[in-house]
Amino acid sequence: MVPVAPAGEPANASSGVFGRLAGHQVALDAFLREQLAEFEPEIRDLAAYALEASGKRLRPALVFLSGWKGSGAPSAELVRVAAVVEMVHLATLVHDDIMDGAEVRRNRPTVARRYGSAAAVLLGDALFAHALHLTTQFPTTAVCAAVSVAMRRVCAGEIVQTLRRGSLRVDRADYTRIVDLKTAELFRVSCQLGAEVAGHPAGFVAAASRFGRHLGIGYQIYDDLVDFFGEEARIGKTLGTDLTSGKLTLPLLVLRERLEPVEQERLAEELAGRRVPDLAGRLEQMRRLGVFARVAGEVAVELADARAALAPWQGLAPTPRLGELADLLEAQVRSLAPAT
Amino acid sequence: MVPVAPAGEPANASSGVFGRLAGHQVALDAFLREQLAEFEPEIRDLAAYALEASGKRLRPALVFLSGWKGSGAPSAELVRVAAVVEMVHLATLVHDDIMDGAEVRRNRPTVARRYGSAAAVLLGDALFAHALHLTTQFPTTAVCAAVSVAMRRVCAGEIVQTLRRGSLRVDRADYTRIVDLKTAELFRVSCQLGAEVAGHPAGFVAAASRFGRHLGIGYQIYDDLVDFFGEEARIGKTLGTDLTSGKLTLPLLVLRERLEPVEQERLAEELAGRRVPDLAGRLEQMRRLGVFARVAGEVAVELADARAALAPWQGLAPTPRLGELADLLEAQVRSLAPAT
Repeated sequence: MVPVAPAGEPANASSGVFGRLAGHQVALDAFLREQLAEFEPEIRDLAAYALEASGKRLRPALVFLSGWKGSGAPSAELVRVAAVVEMVHLATLVHDDIMDGAEVRRNRPTVARRYGSAAAVLLGDALFAHALHLTTQFPTTAVCAAVSVAMRRVCAGEIVQTLRRGSLRVDRADYTRIVDLKTAELFRVSCQLGAEVAGHPAGFVAAASRFGRHLGIGYQIYDDLVDFFGEEARIGKTLGTDLTSGKLTLPLLVLRERLEPVEQERLAEELAGRRVPDLAGRLEQMRRLGVFARVAGEVAVELADARAALAPWQGLAPTPRLGELADLLEAQVRSLAPAT
Repeated sequence: MVPVAPAGEPANASSGVFGRLAGHQVALDAFLREQLAEFEPEIRDLAAYALEASGKRLRPALVFLSGWKGSGAPSAELVRVAAVVEMVHLATLVHDDIMDGAEVRRNRPTVARRYGSAAAVLLGDALFAHALHLTTQFPTTAVCAAVSVAMRRVCAGEIVQTLRRGSLRVDRADYTRIVDLKTAELFRVSCQLGAEVAGHPAGFVAAASRFGRHLGIGYQIYDDLVDFFGEEARIGKTLGTDLTSGKLTLPLLVLRERLEPVEQERLAEELAGRRVPDLAGRLEQMRRLGVFARVAGEVAVELADARAALAPWQGLAPTPRLGELADLLEAQVRSLAPAT
């Protein structure tokens, strides 16, 4: 069995591709610690709290692997880009936890829980601002432009998801659009900027960007599968939260398509909050109706597209490393498969 | 009597210095409307709602006046900078209204009230992101660097204020620091960038920056006076909210210094939320103990510093225009003076 990371991230730090990045991540941690000195003294502790709450540093890994030139020390520019995407990601987590009313993230109280939601709103803003400030330390405005658009798109995706909560007017196309914006965009820009800053050819930058986007969509679908098929103890969070919070993710969309009209109506009422969600019943239906295999198939489609994007670039150093990441996600999805 | 604007802004659009800016503000409005097309279609209506909620466009006025070259059409660069600072300001308002639980701003439901606080958090983020994206349309990273630092400092100021709410461990120095960060910083950067983008000499850019900072501190003190000495009907919001929300602003700090120990203790309990605030009683004490004159004196000190910064630049086109703005704020403060 593939080792799994807490909280749904697809790898633990000691395994394969992440093992290769150990030195890179040390450089990133040191850089993030240095950044604390840039924050106003009054908010340094809060910023430190938010920056420490890091998980597997998946987006920095995409930056490092897309800019891969060997396992030596990463360039200062690559570390800076990695810090930018991680800081943007951590800012979105700080804000997400307010909106979700989450109390715990990675076994610690969330920023909102510890400092209050008002401070959490503002700290998220300050982290966004500082991330964008770091982008101004590149010679041109290109990095700032890419990151600011990505950030706006991530927010747009989350707004759409938020406004649709509890609504049944969500179809496959809506789901894909939301995932594309809220998750795939930051994966995409991480790969794009990693390749770009490392000076890889423009054709590869475009390929890495496509790879990142498809990997990101695949990763979000995997994460939505974890919410139903994960093991609570292993992923460290409550299962079934998408059902209870009215989020029509792909497993639920596929389930809905396969249910009889009466059961569809019942599910609709659960999602709309007019009926207590029957998580056990829904899981049983998902198993019986083959929902897992269907959704896992969608991840496979995305991973195939991701790999295809890199196909013309087999000779380049980053290609096998990014391929390992796709393999890892595939293995993680497999490890969720329910016993049949 | 000097005409006053709704909601505590120091001028109405038809009067003197703002009258001169009518054409500039039309250009700004047109530019902001154009920007909506840049937002993802799903969030365009929300963005339009937030951007329409504009007040007197005070920060854009600072940009235009600091970059003043005559009443002709402003340059595209100046309009862009004005849009950036206004968008950052509107984003902070969207977030402030969530944290304050405000239901109405400028006679319309707040974004949080209309679309929910989750969408409001994200929309504020998207506005920040787009404002910073606009800064990347300048040839160098300088504008983005200045705005991103200013934004982080504004957030830091608001975080400090938020964490201190209801606390009595706030002294004059803390108040000045909070005001300097949360309000004066964006005034300062508006003046700096207006002067810089218009191509005025470096010495004037520094002077305008100092002018903006002192004007901003003065403006915030004025705004804190309005909360106690304004007329509810005229400013369009409830008075005394700083007392009821436990914000130790300058009028309350001065009052505290002048109260007997027993009354100081009572005020402390009101601020901490352990006793129902006696707004009428506090106002009566403020009148009796000359709090208004003392606080108004602090505005005068800031305005003197602001004017002094511009003194060496009398010959330059922006100087008299910025001076008019200082005069206007002075007149606004005078119009609040309680009858004696």
